[in-house]
Amino acid sequence: MKAALSTLISTKNLPPHHCASSSSSSLSRSIWLHPKPLSPLPSFLAPIAPAKSLSSSSIGLSRSSKIHTANFSSTMASAYKPEAARVPPALPLPTPPVTKASYLIMSLCFKIGLCQLAVTADKERNIAHARKAIEDAAAKGAQLVLLPEIWNGPYSNDSFPVYAEDIDAGGDASPSTAMLSEVSQRLKITIVGGSIAERSGDRLYNTSCVFGTDGKLLAKHRKIHLFDIDIPGKITFIESKTLTAGQTPTIVDTEVGRIGIGICYDIRFQELAMIYGARGAHLICYPGAFNMTTGPLHWELLQRARAVDNQLYVATCSPAQDAGAGYVAWGHSTLVGPFGEVLATTEHEEAIIIAEVDYSLLELRRTNLPLLKQRRGDLYQLVDVQRLNSQ
Amino acid sequence: MKAALSTLISTKNLPPHHCASSSSSSLSRSIWLHPKPLSPLPSFLAPIAPAKSLSSSSIGLSRSSKIHTANFSSTMASAYKPEAARVPPALPLPTPPVTKASYLIMSLCFKIGLCQLAVTADKERNIAHARKAIEDAAAKGAQLVLLPEIWNGPYSNDSFPVYAEDIDAGGDASPSTAMLSEVSQRLKITIVGGSIAERSGDRLYNTSCVFGTDGKLLAKHRKIHLFDIDIPGKITFIESKTLTAGQTPTIVDTEVGRIGIGICYDIRFQELAMIYGARGAHLICYPGAFNMTTGPLHWELLQRARAVDNQLYVATCSPAQDAGAGYVAWGHSTLVGPFGEVLATTEHEEAIIIAEVDYSLLELRRTNLPLLKQRRGDLYQLVDVQRLNSQ
Repeated sequence: MKAALSTLISTKNLPPHHCASSSSSSLSRSIWLHPKPLSPLPSFLAPIAPAKSLSSSSIGLSRSSKIHTANFSSTMASAYKPEAARVPPALPLPTPPVTKASYLIMSLCFKIGLCQLAVTADKERNIAHARKAIEDAAAKGAQLVLLPEIWNGPYSNDSFPVYAEDIDAGGDASPSTAMLSEVSQRLKITIVGGSIAERSGDRLYNTSCVFGTDGKLLAKHRKIHLFDIDIPGKITFIESKTLTAGQTPTIVDTEVGRIGIGICYDIRFQELAMIYGARGAHLICYPGAFNMTTGPLHWELLQRARAVDNQLYVATCSPAQDAGAGYVAWGHSTLVGPFGEVLATTEHEEAIIIAEVDYSLLELRRTNLPLLKQRRGDLYQLVDVQRLNSQ
Repeated sequence: MKAALSTLISTKNLPPHHCASSSSSSLSRSIWLHPKPLSPLPSFLAPIAPAKSLSSSSIGLSRSSKIHTANFSSTMASAYKPEAARVPPALPLPTPPVTKASYLIMSLCFKIGLCQLAVTADKERNIAHARKAIEDAAAKGAQLVLLPEIWNGPYSNDSFPVYAEDIDAGGDASPSTAMLSEVSQRLKITIVGGSIAERSGDRLYNTSCVFGTDGKLLAKHRKIHLFDIDIPGKITFIESKTLTAGQTPTIVDTEVGRIGIGICYDIRFQELAMIYGARGAHLICYPGAFNMTTGPLHWELLQRARAVDNQLYVATCSPAQDAGAGYVAWGHSTLVGPFGEVLATTEHEEAIIIAEVDYSLLELRRTNLPLLKQRRGDLYQLVDVQRLNSQ
């Protein structure tokens, strides 16, 4: 099985600041211990009334998302009200955890592993295969590992109910996430666990789980935008036949930075990435399985667009291509930097991509192109409805 | 001079529905005569209070922009409130003008001409050269012609005051726009006249003028986002040293559809394109002069992203490259379709690109990928501040 997994180490287009100590697995968490309350709205902005469909229990940020107080510099205050272009106002990038060896002089730099896995109809094999890939990635130095969308069984409306697990029940009711918890704790790595079909009561979701280095579930993202498309003669898929859409954007603080989560079709909606950017994300991870029509057309384009527009990292992870499957995935798992540059990618075969992420580039690119200060809050405003209503 | 202008006719990646009568220059305008009032906000949305910097005189749409009543189909009403993702709600695509020969069976299909001009320090020559290029494009069948950013003189802070014209005074005070008016009327074409430096009182703007087939000025867009960037050792430019930013998005109904206008750096701000999309634009035109650093990095990426995210056409026009100039433009004028596909482009030399635009593809692509119905207005809302305040 190991022989079937090729390993790529990205060497092209590396950012200018190479990691000095990215192999350290012991990261300080001290700066996460005291989240401050959200800042109030500027006085000139009256909040939008909540949409009627929102219940009070669904409003607010997930508990695992610790958002720091906004601290706008005086240079942000222009006649164009750039701080008003995000409602509530955008948060600055949180200082990422730093290596013990260099916490005073550099931002976080680490290796990410993207496991583009071949997925079969054998769930037990898929789980063992994913575990092995994660171990391989960690052995190559990855401190964050990303899995594909729907990695424990086939991607099809027929299969979702069969392979679905009760994640909240855990244990034997969810062997896929039990494995992720065990391996993340054992290897002391962060895992964005792709996605699996989740059963919750009588509903099914397409759900991604994020595990911390202690093996605890940090966040659970249910795909917000269901994949219902119809390109006749090319690709037709109606996920909403079996799945229910999630109700909440998901952003989570981990030892490898603040990460926003989207699943596949979620990437088409630029507003979700804008919300994550405004909540201070360093990185957005999109497990995804584009297909042979939308893959060549849009997969790389959308990743690069989300990265360059929001000046953050974007990582994607697809299943490997199986020409005999009912749904043929495009592959091409990719890491994109904050200039929209492809830092590492692959073709359609099974592969583990190992590449470096350097958060110091975020500030650099935001200084090069100061889009945050140049936005026209007097002309347009992106409202993060749940964050606004949670205040 | 004619020999110096190569002409490209795009034949690759043409949309499946070729124009049946795109050579017709006589287009019905009847559907534009009775604009209806803007629709009211949904009752569950309380308007955001206006930003303090907005005076009442600056609020509202330009008079040339006739926005039709929203008419959401019942399929738009879901629990996710997709219609609330744009505040005010998004307008449907207006029916484009149709050719007399086929008004019952097809949407507008026409040729666009992108004139990638060599620009010199000789203003009189630049104006004559642009006139000749427009005539050449029209002779090839172009019903809409786009010119580059700053086409009547060098792109530099030193040159802007020297080449600036008083557009509102017109006549001898603005020989560049007088030419555009004359040629658009004579050839019965629509012109998005790139941009020139505009003098208005004691201020300078980077301004694009749109002329109708009757030679009248339909709209004037002043660059909203000034080009102030600093990539050390690569490109540093501070447009705000000499220029003042515009205060209004510009969208205009023409005989070749509803067109949103942005100038160069405006393309980096996804919100502007989203506003235009929500106001029913068929096409966004960005005259622009990216450079040898940001050009290869981002020029095509941003155009394709704006097109695919908003499911509309994007056309750009750059000056040709002059390696001896103080600011070296990237060239690569391009037409992008609503799937983010490059329909026609060129390299850095002077060229006239002639390519087909087919608005029936807009509805087709929006049916293939029904993003409008799938947006989550319960989670995010893009507020068009001026349109909201104009209601």
